[in-house]
Amino acid sequence: MTPSNRIAVCPGSYDPITNGHLDVIARAARLFDEIIVGVVNLPIRKGKTLFTVEERIELIADATAHLDNVRTEPFDVLLVEFARANGARTIIKGLRAISDFEYEFEMNQLNRKLAPDIESAYLMASPEYSFLSSTGIKEMATFGANVADLVPAKVAQRLKEALAR
Amino acid sequence: MTPSNRIAVCPGSYDPITNGHLDVIARAARLFDEIIVGVVNLPIRKGKTLFTVEERIELIADATAHLDNVRTEPFDVLLVEFARANGARTIIKGLRAISDFEYEFEMNQLNRKLAPDIESAYLMASPEYSFLSSTGIKEMATFGANVADLVPAKVAQRLKEALAR
Amino acid sequence: MTPSNRIAVCPGSYDPITNGHLDVIARAARLFDEIIVGVVNLPIRKGKTLFTVEERIELIADATAHLDNVRTEPFDVLLVEFARANGARTIIKGLRAISDFEYEFEMNQLNRKLAPDIESAYLMASPEYSFLSSTGIKEMATFGANVADLVPAKVAQRLKEALAR
Amino acid sequence: MTPSNRIAVCPGSYDPITNGHLDVIARAARLFDEIIVGVVNLPIRKGKTLFTVEERIELIADATAHLDNVRTEPFDVLLVEFARANGARTIIKGLRAISDFEYEFEMNQLNRKLAPDIESAYLMASPEYSFLSSTGIKEMATFGANVADLVPAKVAQRLKEALAR
Amino acid sequence: MTPSNRIAVCPGSYDPITNGHLDVIARAARLFDEIIVGVVNLPIRKGKTLFTVEERIELIADATAHLDNVRTEPFDVLLVEFARANGARTIIKGLRAISDFEYEFEMNQLNRKLAPDIESAYLMASPEYSFLSSTGIKEMATFGANVADLVPAKVAQRLKEALAR
Amino acid sequence: MTPSNRIAVCPGSYDPITNGHLDVIARAARLFDEIIVGVVNLPIRKGKTLFTVEERIELIADATAHLDNVRTEPFDVLLVEFARANGARTIIKGLRAISDFEYEFEMNQLNRKLAPDIESAYLMASPEYSFLSSTGIKEMATFGANVADLVPAKVAQRLKEALAR
Repeated sequence: MTPSNRIAVCPGSYDPITNGHLDVIARAARLFDEIIVGVVNLPIRKGKTLFTVEERIELIADATAHLDNVRTEPFDVLLVEFARANGARTIIKGLRAISDFEYEFEMNQLNRKLAPDIESAYLMASPEYSFLSSTGIKEMATFGANVADLVPAKVAQRLKEALAR
Repeated sequence: MTPSNRIAVCPGSYDPITNGHLDVIARAARLFDEIIVGVVNLPIRKGKTLFTVEERIELIADATAHLDNVRTEPFDVLLVEFARANGARTIIKGLRAISDFEYEFEMNQLNRKLAPDIESAYLMASPEYSFLSSTGIKEMATFGANVADLVPAKVAQRLKEALAR
Repeated sequence: MTPSNRIAVCPGSYDPITNGHLDVIARAARLFDEIIVGVVNLPIRKGKTLFTVEERIELIADATAHLDNVRTEPFDVLLVEFARANGARTIIKGLRAISDFEYEFEMNQLNRKLAPDIESAYLMASPEYSFLSSTGIKEMATFGANVADLVPAKVAQRLKEALAR
Repeated sequence: MTPSNRIAVCPGSYDPITNGHLDVIARAARLFDEIIVGVVNLPIRKGKTLFTVEERIELIADATAHLDNVRTEPFDVLLVEFARANGARTIIKGLRAISDFEYEFEMNQLNRKLAPDIESAYLMASPEYSFLSSTGIKEMATFGANVADLVPAKVAQRLKEALAR
Repeated sequence: MTPSNRIAVCPGSYDPITNGHLDVIARAARLFDEIIVGVVNLPIRKGKTLFTVEERIELIADATAHLDNVRTEPFDVLLVEFARANGARTIIKGLRAISDFEYEFEMNQLNRKLAPDIESAYLMASPEYSFLSSTGIKEMATFGANVADLVPAKVAQRLKEALAR
Repeated sequence: MTPSNRIAVCPGSYDPITNGHLDVIARAARLFDEIIVGVVNLPIRKGKTLFTVEERIELIADATAHLDNVRTEPFDVLLVEFARANGARTIIKGLRAISDFEYEFEMNQLNRKLAPDIESAYLMASPEYSFLSSTGIKEMATFGANVADLVPAKVAQRLKEALAR
């Protein structure tokens, strides 16, 4: 499949999706004709995520239902291969902080070494979400904090259920 | 003019264009159908650049002649207005270092406040150009250093002439 | 005058005050009984600020009129001496970004070397103001951008007038 | 209990307290009438600290015995709730490095989202302690290095005993 | 053994050695008369590395065979003691990124506190290797990516074998 | 002159030398047989330094008189050429902060591009000097602050005289 400049992938663990992720996906959806949200599903991390890959995909699909040109897929191969397999020439990621920048810079160089035909482009997090991470959300929820403003409604509900297990 | 997701602008001072700029422009040209290289031309900076805006545009045009979907324009308005006037929904910039990231993060938020319909996306500098800046090139050229590997051939020539003035 | 832990100074150039400055001052005003906003007035910078020190003080006084425990003073001595002269044991500053952090770290060590009895404490900028600076505001206003959401109303008015001069 | 601007909490794991922690606590004690050192005691981390929460509290109490307005408490709730329960309006933390800054910036925004009435203020580490961390101390002690200059005397003693177990 | 300014150590985990490590070692070998590559061998990390200390040493020795003044040794003591035991006054390390810088700054201060007679000096990573880490290499190899350009030939071969286990 | 691994240069503006510079020079002097302190003397900066190049050299020579293997020279060519002309294979610089690191990383790559035979190595600033810069010292002295602990005695004296002019 020839990569197209109309298609981009938005990769991540999304364990679970936050309003920050959603903001980046929605903004990317205006820049491309088609967005594939790629959900990392490494066998090695099996059982180490709070939500299964099926649950994570369901929550993303639900939160992006209003975005016509967005669909969600799991992947367990190299990111650049996932992009290529979906006909995408571009990988879109959000940048929140310096530490994101450093990590992404390193990944960027590795990925371009592996697949010079695939490009990564970065969107800056909106200030109101620049402090949000799935890990932070899970920690707050563990303490019973109200995260309703920070994640989609269904995610807030599922977090409560998951932590009550 | 309705902004299109097929068109992007690559803004900068380009005083003069380096191989690092060229690398970002060429990579952006694969992600969009049309790239407009925007050359900042502030009246307030008149006489403070080494090359005039006409010279800078000529050098960019020459260096990008092989890229069919790239053209160059000066601008002296807000960047988001320049993008909008050219029908571009996306601004593409290169990120070389942490200090770039911080500055661009600040600009990004200001620009999105001014024009929520325009998005900025960032490409990471290629490692071999991550240390290059127009300022550095000019300093090196002042000392008579050989910059032939770091800028297009015509730029190297013009630098010699300009510094001999 | 013995420094008191009830009094703090908030120093800056405030050329002009932004909503980001105001946010830090208002938050500091809840942590101390008295806040003195100190406006740097170096003879050496005379004529290099957009607003005179009197104008800057007037704009701050106007924007903080609703805060009972805040007053504004110019200063042209070492910051630690200004604090001491006002009976303040604490200097309060806002941190927006890594570059702020580095600069403030350096200043902090110098100030504590000069005056071990005076302490500096830092508040983190609110995300919605983390991209704001007086310099950025002035640049945007130069281009005729609407800065009404980013500065107090009176500042927006004065910026228009100042730039029309 | 209404939060007071006279009371602040200094939270941490303190596993064990170092001279760097002590420096921040002593400086905070000059800025507030009362300091509560809060020792994180998460059930989930049980058995993962070198010292039990009781041991950590004992070592802090011993090291701060000369500071009249400092007392030590464990906590296993959200930090902002611990502050509120102790009548504190302010959380005081030390900043040593860029990575501290980034992490604290993220925590700051989350905490202010959860509890807008509680503020966090930051003191810059003294240069002679800017390289100190409990983790570093434990690693050094594992190798038998002399840490007498870096931690309170009693901590140095207990480290030896703990590592001999 | 009196430390000599002719001898330096290059410490690391080297699990496994990459072309980036090799670049730093080769450059260090031009600045000193003798280089000892020190391979960390902590009992506590036994079984947590992909390669045993013997395998790691073999791979380094093989990759540095053309450098006459380089030899490789394991160590399980404090780095400064390892340096001293080898008569080295200098520890040489590579810096790739901000996060490296912060960590090394902290280690530097601790090491100089422990052993003021031993100095650490840092070389900047070459741009083409600035994104390389042993961890990244192992992750890529797990996915079957071709790492032949990024590690010595023998390492690429051993990675395949190790991951096929 | 063949570059030797026994000789290093320590370049800078030294306007004026501080105790932080002195610390780096003294530590470098233990790692090499000969240190040449190189004082930048760009015609373009003539009259923009507080002290003339002759004064700066005199103050360095005075402060390093106890170090047998250190001498001071002005230079107005590319740094790598200055190193080569002095038979030095190594350039030694101090790193105080992230911003130093970024700038030096950029310079490092440019210099290695220009002169692959010359290497730069970096020493980390001692914590007690990590906040010191010539610019900061001059600012403080302008306000009449006591800088006796931060610069050599003769520099403190000359600063007073220079600022009284």
